Amino acid sequence: MAGVTTPALAAAVSEAGALGSLGLGAASPDKAREEIEGVRALTDRAFNVNFFCHAPPMSGADERRAWLAHLAPYFQAQGAVVPDDLANIYQPINDNPAMQEVIFQTRPPVVSFHFGVPSAALIDGIHDYGGQVWICVTTPTEAEQAVAAGASALIAQGVEAGGHRGNFAAEHDAEFGLVALLRILVRRHSVPIIAAGGLMDGTAIHGVLSMGAAAAQLGTAFVACPESAAAPAYRDALRLGQATEITQAISGRPARGLVGPFQSDIAPGAPWVPDYPLAYDAAKQLHAAAKANNDHRYAPNWAGQGVALSREMPGAELVAVLVEEMKT
Amino acid sequence: MAGVTTPALAAAVSEAGALGSLGLGAASPDKAREEIEGVRALTDRAFNVNFFCHAPPMSGADERRAWLAHLAPYFQAQGAVVPDDLANIYQPINDNPAMQEVIFQTRPPVVSFHFGVPSAALIDGIHDYGGQVWICVTTPTEAEQAVAAGASALIAQGVEAGGHRGNFAAEHDAEFGLVALLRILVRRHSVPIIAAGGLMDGTAIHGVLSMGAAAAQLGTAFVACPESAAAPAYRDALRLGQATEITQAISGRPARGLVGPFQSDIAPGAPWVPDYPLAYDAAKQLHAAAKANNDHRYAPNWAGQGVALSREMPGAELVAVLVEEMKT
Repeated sequence: MAGVTTPALAAAVSEAGALGSLGLGAASPDKAREEIEGVRALTDRAFNVNFFCHAPPMSGADERRAWLAHLAPYFQAQGAVVPDDLANIYQPINDNPAMQEVIFQTRPPVVSFHFGVPSAALIDGIHDYGGQVWICVTTPTEAEQAVAAGASALIAQGVEAGGHRGNFAAEHDAEFGLVALLRILVRRHSVPIIAAGGLMDGTAIHGVLSMGAAAAQLGTAFVACPESAAAPAYRDALRLGQATEITQAISGRPARGLVGPFQSDIAPGAPWVPDYPLAYDAAKQLHAAAKANNDHRYAPNWAGQGVALSREMPGAELVAVLVEEMKT
Repeated sequence: MAGVTTPALAAAVSEAGALGSLGLGAASPDKAREEIEGVRALTDRAFNVNFFCHAPPMSGADERRAWLAHLAPYFQAQGAVVPDDLANIYQPINDNPAMQEVIFQTRPPVVSFHFGVPSAALIDGIHDYGGQVWICVTTPTEAEQAVAAGASALIAQGVEAGGHRGNFAAEHDAEFGLVALLRILVRRHSVPIIAAGGLMDGTAIHGVLSMGAAAAQLGTAFVACPESAAAPAYRDALRLGQATEITQAISGRPARGLVGPFQSDIAPGAPWVPDYPLAYDAAKQLHAAAKANNDHRYAPNWAGQGVALSREMPGAELVAVLVEEMKT
């Protein structure tokens, strides 16, 4: 939920008794520090911060040019200039000492990681200040690696989940459904397993807890909260609740969103998509160019398979409803 | 589980307190009658029979020839003759009056359908003798169609499931995970929803029941039972419990099995796969040719994503273990 969470939403969720989160993978160290301090100003409760742990992109100039050539007609249709090249817009946390310093200084109670395993030094540093390290996994093999690295808990992300798949190697996604992945991990590991993917109501949370999950992580369910940073067009798209599809064509890594032109037009027949996050630079520029023309089709509109059950209510109210549903 | 179920397995499961099933989609009417009578000879309890409700194949001669040309090297490597053409090996239940007659005469308590909605006459005929009609669905839209047609219950098949996906249109599979699909269907429909896909133990069954499922359907969990018709090599493959993947290259419809040459070699770069079940004729012939050389790689080895949790025990014992696990 990088770019969608806000300190207000995270604090409201934590105050209501759940664990609020900040998606900081796309943030600068200064912005990350500001958001963490923003949560702390609103609540004394625990909260979670999430970072990207991807391998640095390797795509060469030819690959980047081929992708831009593939996207050129879409830029031109917006009257926009085709970018000359693609920028590496996100620094992986393992290669970002300034961000690691923010973590060590601000000491968030829970630090979670997407796309891979953080360095031993980072894991040790978080453990040293008493923080927990949660690592998102999508397969039994990734779970073994995360546990071996010293994860405090695993986030088992089912294929139902909206946004980016957490698979470590972008080129291979086993697409495990949540139930199968959860049961395998619960039976094999003693660390807590947090269930994620397609969970939209308290009944589903109760269900995954009864399957052995220690907790449930919900993303899409909170995007429609008024405290989120979701744009009005994104909220409109969620309301329609149409089909979702996983595509690598938006960012260079598989990610699930409401079906739009990236899934239906750009991905089919496309050349090899440049590595994450190089491709994402192009998608963001195309979206910005279209948005300037009041054309919102190129928004990624990340959403999980449960999006049809999305509800619009403040974060605290949603947590209260979820808790009530868990009981009945 | 067509070709894997047996009257002995179905009867053992029903006697143990669950609902045993016969997969009869690949059977002749005479064989279907014999198996149904075989169950009745072993138990007075209710049981389920399953049929295929696919659209008849439309692939022309060019498409069939292109597919055989693609497979030719694999046949040749086995010293086998490449087939001249592909046969339509399974008659859809809607176009199979002799099989419908078997249903009306033998009156199985539950008749379930895969790949689509049975004709109004067939649904009415089953309801008329007091039977239940269960229809497998993979999306909210398919669920609406099944309910509108008069289904007594829906089988919500998650993407986790082994074997053939039940999606109505072979060319579009939304790949809903079980949790998201289940919650959407439970909240929208009043007919019972049966959860299927990746369920291997009683804890998972308890979990889906607590999410609103009326029952759980397990397939892969029962393949390793000694009473099943699974070949020894299939049992060996299940024991290894490696990764599964969905491919259309075996049968012409998306289906999940343990990763083998169809997923890794034959599907990539393949021409358009002929419609189900034409392609399946080629896969079965290639498997038979290889098997004669003691090469079992071309077996489809259908299995769900929970296969790593497979257990080898008689059907009655497995049902007892599942019930025990549901309580704890």
